[in-house]
Amino acid sequence: MNEKAVLIVGSMALDDLELPSTTAKNVLGGAATYAAFAASLFAPARIVAVVGEDFSQNDIETLMKHGIDTSGVERVKGKTFRWAGRYGANLTSRVTLDTQLNVFAGFQPKLPAAYRSSDYVLLANIHPALQLQVLDQVTQPKLVLADTMNFWIEGEPALLNKVLERVDVLCINDEEARLLSGVYPLLQAAQIILGKGPKSLIIKRGENGAVLVDSKGMFWVPAVPLNDAVDPTGAGDSFAGALVGYLASEDELTPESLRRALYVGTAVASFNVQAVGTARLARLTIQDVERRIAELTAMTHLPAQTHG
Amino acid sequence: MNEKAVLIVGSMALDDLELPSTTAKNVLGGAATYAAFAASLFAPARIVAVVGEDFSQNDIETLMKHGIDTSGVERVKGKTFRWAGRYGANLTSRVTLDTQLNVFAGFQPKLPAAYRSSDYVLLANIHPALQLQVLDQVTQPKLVLADTMNFWIEGEPALLNKVLERVDVLCINDEEARLLSGVYPLLQAAQIILGKGPKSLIIKRGENGAVLVDSKGMFWVPAVPLNDAVDPTGAGDSFAGALVGYLASEDELTPESLRRALYVGTAVASFNVQAVGTARLARLTIQDVERRIAELTAMTHLPAQTHG
Repeated sequence: MNEKAVLIVGSMALDDLELPSTTAKNVLGGAATYAAFAASLFAPARIVAVVGEDFSQNDIETLMKHGIDTSGVERVKGKTFRWAGRYGANLTSRVTLDTQLNVFAGFQPKLPAAYRSSDYVLLANIHPALQLQVLDQVTQPKLVLADTMNFWIEGEPALLNKVLERVDVLCINDEEARLLSGVYPLLQAAQIILGKGPKSLIIKRGENGAVLVDSKGMFWVPAVPLNDAVDPTGAGDSFAGALVGYLASEDELTPESLRRALYVGTAVASFNVQAVGTARLARLTIQDVERRIAELTAMTHLPAQTHG
Repeated sequence: MNEKAVLIVGSMALDDLELPSTTAKNVLGGAATYAAFAASLFAPARIVAVVGEDFSQNDIETLMKHGIDTSGVERVKGKTFRWAGRYGANLTSRVTLDTQLNVFAGFQPKLPAAYRSSDYVLLANIHPALQLQVLDQVTQPKLVLADTMNFWIEGEPALLNKVLERVDVLCINDEEARLLSGVYPLLQAAQIILGKGPKSLIIKRGENGAVLVDSKGMFWVPAVPLNDAVDPTGAGDSFAGALVGYLASEDELTPESLRRALYVGTAVASFNVQAVGTARLARLTIQDVERRIAELTAMTHLPAQTHG
């Protein structure tokens, strides 16, 4: 057995969530956490992140129980990164109530020696300088997927461009794609962004699904329609984590495998939304995911023509 | 040969369009016009509508050249229905600058005798009382598709409910579906609306595509991504017209044919957006549509798995 591992670098956080249906404090969160839970369903996942003294050992152990290698999670003096947000009634909007970077402000990703040969790398949304530091520490990754955000697109365009040159898949939302490209139509935005380096671009569109653009053209997957959506926090991160985890498990990088991975990511993200924080992810099975992919396929694929 | 005809009842209009790329006055428009052009690509179309003395005989002849039966288009004293609108930079929003109902204010749909046996009926967005008048004049339609709008949902709920009881397919946009159902999640909204009578609900979502909900579940088709969108006027009407026209040409009403029809409608609507008014529709061919359906299919259908 030669299982390919997924290296995930990003935030681990404690979140306070004001949701339409409930309120939850001190919820295990952060992009790396969501991505690792999702990836670990398909492949061994390893995290590089930083937490503070207040981070519960229990949460570390929960991750380890999912086979996630936490030897790259540094615990330092101070408090863990904290985010507080409030979601609108239909979960389509949210406002940040509070952000405390705490120990995350001094985050310098250091890869344990065993991580350096990682074939699959997920760079969650962190400062592009840190994303570059990670890339300098991995020897020869087969696939690098990166996320970013408006803050870096506007504030660190030169560094971000350097990241883009070294990324295989860029995974951002539609607003970010429009900001990064400077144009509105997504197809045109995608063409401009692909000119900056990534081989593939995935545009996350929330309740409108996701679209992939690569050399083979566009590929679209809708979001799973849910009557019981509870908490969208981490949906994009679990999407990306599952996507890279699936690719690592297949260890095949083709336009076709990326399209299947888009379905896998969409299915996993849809479960993530159905419970607060990582609760649903933590008890998700491959069988759950396969069932949802079958539902998605029935929703998107034309039935065979029954007559001439 | 026993070709099934599509009866279309709705507005014929002259539009003034302020588009990001151009301005056009006195453009042939109206829901029935767009729907008839689209339907006529697949099946004989017949219109019931009213126009004023200012409506050009040339426009009538253009419709007739497309095989559209205009014997149900009444010409009366006064001016044709006029609409003026301005679209936002990205074509995602529009404001109505002026509406002059003119002869449309007194519209009483009267079906020529030859229209009464129509098997396929498209009730465009008109007063639900008029939609009911039409239904009282057709003998035994195989399929009735209806559109409506916020104005009737809020202003004539009782009459609209009577229409819904007699409709096979309701075809409205997401905002209207939420208003009609009183709930936000589209799946839940659809379940409530289907409880009012329609066997199938199609929710048009503009640049986010369309979704069908029926006894077989949900089916989703994205909008064709376009870099050269010019004028969205009539997109929903050409979608519905093509959809019913295709169903009439197949003369087969199954969940499967309805799913294929959704692709046909999406493809035709995408062409409609690529030129001002009905210009692109008027020179559209079945081959154009087939090519675009192939593109849509490549964008939505997973490639076959190449390994175990």
